[in-house]
Amino acid sequence: MTFTENELKSWFTEKWQDSGAAISLQITQLVHAEQSPFQYIEIFDTAHFGRLLTLDGLVMVTGRDNFIYHEMLSHPALFFHPAPRDVLIIGGGDCGTLREVLKHHSVNRVVQVELDERVTRVCEQFFPELCVSNHDSRAEFIFTDGLRWVAAAPAASFDLIIVDGTDPIGQAAGLFSTEFYRNCHALLRTGGIISAQSESPLFHADLIVAIHGSLRKAGFNQTKTLHFPQCTYPSGWWSATLATRDGEFLPPRPLPGDLITHYYDDAIHSGAFSLPRFLRERLSTFTWKG
Amino acid sequence: MTFTENELKSWFTEKWQDSGAAISLQITQLVHAEQSPFQYIEIFDTAHFGRLLTLDGLVMVTGRDNFIYHEMLSHPALFFHPAPRDVLIIGGGDCGTLREVLKHHSVNRVVQVELDERVTRVCEQFFPELCVSNHDSRAEFIFTDGLRWVAAAPAASFDLIIVDGTDPIGQAAGLFSTEFYRNCHALLRTGGIISAQSESPLFHADLIVAIHGSLRKAGFNQTKTLHFPQCTYPSGWWSATLATRDGEFLPPRPLPGDLITHYYDDAIHSGAFSLPRFLRERLSTFTWKG
Repeated sequence: MTFTENELKSWFTEKWQDSGAAISLQITQLVHAEQSPFQYIEIFDTAHFGRLLTLDGLVMVTGRDNFIYHEMLSHPALFFHPAPRDVLIIGGGDCGTLREVLKHHSVNRVVQVELDERVTRVCEQFFPELCVSNHDSRAEFIFTDGLRWVAAAPAASFDLIIVDGTDPIGQAAGLFSTEFYRNCHALLRTGGIISAQSESPLFHADLIVAIHGSLRKAGFNQTKTLHFPQCTYPSGWWSATLATRDGEFLPPRPLPGDLITHYYDDAIHSGAFSLPRFLRERLSTFTWKG
Repeated sequence: MTFTENELKSWFTEKWQDSGAAISLQITQLVHAEQSPFQYIEIFDTAHFGRLLTLDGLVMVTGRDNFIYHEMLSHPALFFHPAPRDVLIIGGGDCGTLREVLKHHSVNRVVQVELDERVTRVCEQFFPELCVSNHDSRAEFIFTDGLRWVAAAPAASFDLIIVDGTDPIGQAAGLFSTEFYRNCHALLRTGGIISAQSESPLFHADLIVAIHGSLRKAGFNQTKTLHFPQCTYPSGWWSATLATRDGEFLPPRPLPGDLITHYYDDAIHSGAFSLPRFLRERLSTFTWKG
């Protein structure tokens, strides 16, 4: 089967060239397009995936499946921490992660450091459901380069850091570096946790192993990867890698009765850390020195 | 982003029209094509997914990611059973499930009832790694309509039934019917278990709920769904639904040291049954009477 020439006009395609695979979404209209100082931003309406946000032609968010990514990047780390108060989000311009973090009553301050203010402004307009908490008095927006910001911020000022960036190409590659993780380590208080999006277990297992190594070189103590389905990201399968600043991962706090989620809960919390055998074996035989 | 006209020649595309999404795989050559009495069979070499088998233009198997599907359809059910001896596979023409089942030393007979003998013969030629156990003396091949076969087979002759069929359209729709499940129930011995592929949690949650209902109407006692990533199936996320003939699911047997798998192990066994909250809530509020 293939697309006809005529169909091509109504299907948005993202090619994962290194993996010889692509995903396409049927679009009904282009709603918005602009060149920001950093990237080309587009918003489409799709036939069955709600709104679609792309940056430089890559899928960032769809209305239909973003809940899995945003919940799994934030809640496992938040529930591992006994009392997260100050949270830093690096990236996260669509504000879906911020919304999840602000569901936690213990949190009294979230600083979101996003490079491109236009992404946030566009999402406020076209993804209002992701931005419902943007005016929460606990939320603080800083639009600047996250890599530089973490290098200069005061030490020991956060309980949790969430790295909600794009793929490790161009500007975002630094978000996977030992130097960046070392700066994050310094920003965390005792008992602090970092949670970083860590790409596809099927396509990027090497990268996941490397992230564990970099986090440990940067001074983090325990590292753990969780995985979840994510239909519109490469391979339909995604991961986040978490690390403790100093101690060990504690049992997660129990789920409060008023927490509304659609993917995450306490059973998913433990299930998501059960890694596929091929990945667990690679991680367990890796030597973390170096 | 979109495909250029020129690229279209080297990308195979499967459109999931009802969901407004599609996956494409970059192909390097068409290796084989034939019209069997039942369907159009094609084998491609791909750039990064190994060999690709399609039936009537739909992806069945790729060399790169079939291990997850085949392991997750078979091992959870096999390890739930204390001593599976006689196993029935309905469908399973590519023989990947058969290979997994025959890894269990307790199994002394596997009957595989596949409609289309040509699928098996083509896979023997082009997917030899899936067919390594086809000449195992415990394997018995019957090429006929599984729906009719289960209606006529002797009662209480199997410990385990694995339903490894295609999507619920055309011929395969019957594999999701209460009548079929009732016949399977009759074929199972006391303590028997059925494991059926049950489509995508994201795209087909209604169907998964309906399968639970049909299995219980057919006389099965406990029902459970597990989920796993499957890059090349619709939404990149897939499921199997299991049911016990009479008793309850027992704790799974421990993994033997000589079992070679790449996705499944005991941690995955429990993790895979941790369902996303949206699906767990739908299943828990469903009334099974009716």
